[in-house]
Amino acid sequence: MAIEPTPADKFSFGLWTVGYNGTDPFGGPTRAPLDVTHVVEKLAELGAYGLTFHDDDLFAFGSDDATREAQIVKLRDALAATGLVVPMVTTNLFSAPVFKDGGFTSNDRAVRRFALRKVLRNIDLAAELGATTFVMWGGREGAEYDSAKDIRQALERYREAVNLLGDYVVDKGYDIRFAIEPKPNEPRGDILLPTAGHALAFIETLERPELVGINPEVGHEQMAGLNFAAGIAQALYQGKLFHIDLNGQRGIKYDQDLVFGHGDLYNAFALVDLLENGGPQGGPTYDGPRHFDYKPSRTESEDGVWASAAANMRNYLLLKERAAAFRADPEVQEALEAARVNELAQPTLGEGEGYEGILADRSAFEDFDADAYFDGNGFGFVRLQQLATEHLLGAR
Amino acid sequence: MAIEPTPADKFSFGLWTVGYNGTDPFGGPTRAPLDVTHVVEKLAELGAYGLTFHDDDLFAFGSDDATREAQIVKLRDALAATGLVVPMVTTNLFSAPVFKDGGFTSNDRAVRRFALRKVLRNIDLAAELGATTFVMWGGREGAEYDSAKDIRQALERYREAVNLLGDYVVDKGYDIRFAIEPKPNEPRGDILLPTAGHALAFIETLERPELVGINPEVGHEQMAGLNFAAGIAQALYQGKLFHIDLNGQRGIKYDQDLVFGHGDLYNAFALVDLLENGGPQGGPTYDGPRHFDYKPSRTESEDGVWASAAANMRNYLLLKERAAAFRADPEVQEALEAARVNELAQPTLGEGEGYEGILADRSAFEDFDADAYFDGNGFGFVRLQQLATEHLLGAR
Amino acid sequence: MAIEPTPADKFSFGLWTVGYNGTDPFGGPTRAPLDVTHVVEKLAELGAYGLTFHDDDLFAFGSDDATREAQIVKLRDALAATGLVVPMVTTNLFSAPVFKDGGFTSNDRAVRRFALRKVLRNIDLAAELGATTFVMWGGREGAEYDSAKDIRQALERYREAVNLLGDYVVDKGYDIRFAIEPKPNEPRGDILLPTAGHALAFIETLERPELVGINPEVGHEQMAGLNFAAGIAQALYQGKLFHIDLNGQRGIKYDQDLVFGHGDLYNAFALVDLLENGGPQGGPTYDGPRHFDYKPSRTESEDGVWASAAANMRNYLLLKERAAAFRADPEVQEALEAARVNELAQPTLGEGEGYEGILADRSAFEDFDADAYFDGNGFGFVRLQQLATEHLLGAR
Amino acid sequence: MAIEPTPADKFSFGLWTVGYNGTDPFGGPTRAPLDVTHVVEKLAELGAYGLTFHDDDLFAFGSDDATREAQIVKLRDALAATGLVVPMVTTNLFSAPVFKDGGFTSNDRAVRRFALRKVLRNIDLAAELGATTFVMWGGREGAEYDSAKDIRQALERYREAVNLLGDYVVDKGYDIRFAIEPKPNEPRGDILLPTAGHALAFIETLERPELVGINPEVGHEQMAGLNFAAGIAQALYQGKLFHIDLNGQRGIKYDQDLVFGHGDLYNAFALVDLLENGGPQGGPTYDGPRHFDYKPSRTESEDGVWASAAANMRNYLLLKERAAAFRADPEVQEALEAARVNELAQPTLGEGEGYEGILADRSAFEDFDADAYFDGNGFGFVRLQQLATEHLLGAR
Repeated sequence: MAIEPTPADKFSFGLWTVGYNGTDPFGGPTRAPLDVTHVVEKLAELGAYGLTFHDDDLFAFGSDDATREAQIVKLRDALAATGLVVPMVTTNLFSAPVFKDGGFTSNDRAVRRFALRKVLRNIDLAAELGATTFVMWGGREGAEYDSAKDIRQALERYREAVNLLGDYVVDKGYDIRFAIEPKPNEPRGDILLPTAGHALAFIETLERPELVGINPEVGHEQMAGLNFAAGIAQALYQGKLFHIDLNGQRGIKYDQDLVFGHGDLYNAFALVDLLENGGPQGGPTYDGPRHFDYKPSRTESEDGVWASAAANMRNYLLLKERAAAFRADPEVQEALEAARVNELAQPTLGEGEGYEGILADRSAFEDFDADAYFDGNGFGFVRLQQLATEHLLGAR
Repeated sequence: MAIEPTPADKFSFGLWTVGYNGTDPFGGPTRAPLDVTHVVEKLAELGAYGLTFHDDDLFAFGSDDATREAQIVKLRDALAATGLVVPMVTTNLFSAPVFKDGGFTSNDRAVRRFALRKVLRNIDLAAELGATTFVMWGGREGAEYDSAKDIRQALERYREAVNLLGDYVVDKGYDIRFAIEPKPNEPRGDILLPTAGHALAFIETLERPELVGINPEVGHEQMAGLNFAAGIAQALYQGKLFHIDLNGQRGIKYDQDLVFGHGDLYNAFALVDLLENGGPQGGPTYDGPRHFDYKPSRTESEDGVWASAAANMRNYLLLKERAAAFRADPEVQEALEAARVNELAQPTLGEGEGYEGILADRSAFEDFDADAYFDGNGFGFVRLQQLATEHLLGAR
Repeated sequence: MAIEPTPADKFSFGLWTVGYNGTDPFGGPTRAPLDVTHVVEKLAELGAYGLTFHDDDLFAFGSDDATREAQIVKLRDALAATGLVVPMVTTNLFSAPVFKDGGFTSNDRAVRRFALRKVLRNIDLAAELGATTFVMWGGREGAEYDSAKDIRQALERYREAVNLLGDYVVDKGYDIRFAIEPKPNEPRGDILLPTAGHALAFIETLERPELVGINPEVGHEQMAGLNFAAGIAQALYQGKLFHIDLNGQRGIKYDQDLVFGHGDLYNAFALVDLLENGGPQGGPTYDGPRHFDYKPSRTESEDGVWASAAANMRNYLLLKERAAAFRADPEVQEALEAARVNELAQPTLGEGEGYEGILADRSAFEDFDADAYFDGNGFGFVRLQQLATEHLLGAR
Repeated sequence: MAIEPTPADKFSFGLWTVGYNGTDPFGGPTRAPLDVTHVVEKLAELGAYGLTFHDDDLFAFGSDDATREAQIVKLRDALAATGLVVPMVTTNLFSAPVFKDGGFTSNDRAVRRFALRKVLRNIDLAAELGATTFVMWGGREGAEYDSAKDIRQALERYREAVNLLGDYVVDKGYDIRFAIEPKPNEPRGDILLPTAGHALAFIETLERPELVGINPEVGHEQMAGLNFAAGIAQALYQGKLFHIDLNGQRGIKYDQDLVFGHGDLYNAFALVDLLENGGPQGGPTYDGPRHFDYKPSRTESEDGVWASAAANMRNYLLLKERAAAFRADPEVQEALEAARVNELAQPTLGEGEGYEGILADRSAFEDFDADAYFDGNGFGFVRLQQLATEHLLGAR
């Protein structure tokens, strides 16, 4: 398997990722802004296939129409020159002072209306550029203090907004689906729809749930101590993995946005295995972009930016290689069998069996030997994990 | 407002809560077992209205029918003598060795069948005792290692189980609804349906979603760093708060099961305010049991057990009193207004307005003054929080 | 007890706290800069006694001498006009790009030398202004990746720097002591001397340990899930609480810098009780400034800034009042006695007793009844916590 | 480098680790007890060199002298037969009800005296068996509620106890040093000396600090979100790494005690690199036992117990191999150079230079070009981390 990324790998990057200037809560920029043309060229050169952006990444908040248009033309030209595509677009409803209490769910109705307009305008741009996924990260939709936000009304306003956007893309005939990106906290004390689960649940309340899925981010779920691969599995189970944000995080702390693979390696391995080999015949379960939403460390100069971009892709491909070898190893197969991992795919009930059937089956209860599970019937999970470890370390 | 609990307050306790013998990962029991009759009498004396239990709390796992029946009779007698009710019953699918990899989602199919039988039997008992809520905490449904559990299959097996139980109660005509209790981890490294959000999302995949809601526990959500009151608000928004587990937790660590009010006081205050005053006219939003799922500290003798039981109820009532005063304070009303908290209840769109309307409204975008939110249009949330603080501290 | 703060309460504020402009990782400023004269006047008006600052707060990094001097004069004038004092000064070694890998422990030696010079210059200013505490927060001293930083060498460089600063103040005859401020992470993935404990341990390696203590911050310790009041108790035990940073944090997440009292209320109560009533005769254990290092929420306009400043002081005073009432309550005294809290002050060994004595005491082992602690000899800690709760809530 | 463990690797195991019966807060044992002879034989067979134990692991709490002696003889015989040694012994002051509020710092003085006696007796046994390290894990020394424990008195009692033990081993002429094992919480809400730093600081207050070091455990520090390898580096810097507990933990949650290497792989890699290659000429920095303090998962039967024991050792050796290759790679050397990692070993001051010298050096300040660090002078840390990643994954 080749470790050189190619567009077939569907690796995409946010313009704000490689473009991150190093600002953080305790310091200003350490790097100069990058020109969008340069970014597109470099990403193409490194083997990426896509670029994504927030409106404000491409043209500053409040730009006049001419500036906006000039930047869009610049982007289009660079795309045309390199073959890169724009698979996803998203809107910045969190940086400008006007969004200090959020966009769709700001307590201030005028702000909410402005936010809707900003998004509608950006959807037109997304459609124009051929993006088929429109991500919504509601990073400012939240509160620091419980009495400051009526959560049920916030959900109702969020719902109103997403319903309207659904009307819009349907009526316009845009080939666009929405993906909600959850995050538990930061920059707000608590954020609405804090985990993949909360977002999946909310989607079911919408008028057009089929149009809306999620865009989970590795670090965001891990900031809540949650198992990212397990969350992705539930999203796939519910048919809602519309997009994915790959990066690295080292535990429950501020949002680190490290390179993918530079965080929790075991979970990254499980994730790539799930995405690449989790399908019915062992094929991919997800065929969308492998999108990196990370920040090149503030300590780096521009060469470090591109080294970090390359590292994201390389780690994905290395883990893909390790996962393939893991699946192909006969000892792993045997250990999975011993651990009865595949037995879980077998329905608990027999074909056509209902509660009457199982109630009549004495072997299921009256004659079942529960005691045999004391000091026996072990699952061998540690052995399986050790095999995973050795494959991950390239030691088998 | 009286601070003495009465049955009208609907306070209920798990038999396993006051009955906790002090066993933890690093030590054995520090207290002798309590007789169920004694528990019922004491709780009644303290002003509780309900008792709940796992099958194995009342009669040890593997008890013969006679022992089981004797314990049920004992319970019934005590209920009759005191007027206490059993509003909820739940099943232990986590303590016995047979459940070491879970119940409904054990990799071992025979275990899954046994688990179903154990639950079906316990549903009959729940119905017999008049319980209308059946809680399912899947504490062992999970894994320590990603390759040990196929999460999608686990969800499918969980779904199969809940669908069967739905068939059962419908066919039997039982007046019982199910409530799934989420938890992120402990005793497993990661647990299936780790948060209220994940459980709410899963419910939508069921055959009879209307029969199934959630039973969130304060500490469980807080173990993931999530805002419990906000999660409850989403559950209420989705019509799924079927039951609630009140206790205290001090941050992201092991499951502490402290007395309600002995953990995060601000969130407890917000929760009681939501439950008691969050309804349309300021009335209760939830009319089910206020169920305490806590553990009397291992350092206590029996007198400490009852002191802790009383403390749960007293803290709920004190917070209810504080929340009522908070809502009634004109300065709070004024601060809520200034913070535009109620403005969030106003739809973002005008009556009948769609995207065409808002697109045509120049005041929403072209003429909107976003700059006015820099150094202006502040929300006054800190002042509001300070008012909440002073009410919480009884200082107003 | 008066709830109006006065200079006798020794409340001080960082210039950067009320001066925080709202910048965070996902958005720029929401408030205009405040003039230092205005800040001093407002703080004096609110009842504060002191102002503290980083060099770069008062005059921007890279200011020429005239600008620097003009700002110092402005500050001096405002202090003279209001009576406010400058009890503490600190140096910014974290915002400018040059400090992107730290100051005293940057891998780059030229940066380390520059950092030393910046600090030496600032110590002169501190002395000039009469500050007696010089805080060192090494927020950039750390790393994201383990191989990027040789921790032992970093400690050695930190030690070299602090030793030099000690030489300097001693030789100059400055009445200044140093206080190291620990933090576990943010803005670096991991920070050197991550907790109060690590800093206390490091101090013992210095040439002049007596000159150096710590400046622990509520939120910093709580970001590691640690009990802040307990950490302060250890600092007091080791004679090293030279300064303190008060604020609020809601669990393990990004550094929130909320108003003191708007985070973990129980721990804030315990802290104020310790600071105010923890001394031998129940008097204060700490007589230095009660320094607030917090950020007015980004959602606020300037009025919210001053409301938040006032809230810090008011909450401290409210908790002081609650703690005094707690200590004075005879039932609390009785419960402390029952919980044997005071018995811990009694030495375990008898007067003059050594290991021979205790080995000869059969009552300590051979005749000791360990079994009596099963179902007996409970400590009554829950009752005590409930009394604390009720005092905290103003319900007794 | 061989991947087969041999006694020369100095791998040791707690008797309570492989002997863990599966009890956890939500379930009883899943495995039968193991005979000590069997444990010693199996560990010897797997290549371990040492066994460690708590008194109560070998003979149950409250055993009479004959039982105790019989178990000691059994252990001695097994050691003699296999060549295994007992490098460390520790005392259980946490499981029995008598220790429900701790041992050395129980509020109850009689319990403190009993605890001292239990430890003194166990020190004699340790000396008898040739153990040179005596570990003290104060798992019950702590509190759930702030008012329940006077922390300064607790530290004073802890100090009194350790001072006495120091007198004892010195007078007896025992070749024994003490190692304090920190933990932040669980089973108590907060534990005294919560991190390696707090323990290091406390040691400096003792009468014989030279006799006392620390025994940090991977998972315990990681439960506070701290970087374990960095903490070990500080312990080495302070000359206090007397023993080490290796295991695996997946973030901030309950104490998982997974196999070493099954937790945070990056930090495990950094740790092994530090222990094995961190010395002045690249040799080991620590020559004591590599002690595994872990729990075989509750899902396993006895074969899983031994598979997990073997996995601990195998992972250590694999990481040792990876770390050696990392250090030997010329590209890594070059990247370390580029990142100026070794420059940190160079003193900041010149030889003999004091503050006068650096104040006179215009290149350090007046002529220093701080601006060159904007968009330049990057550190290349991401590239270094990627090289570490590829070595860890066996991809170079």
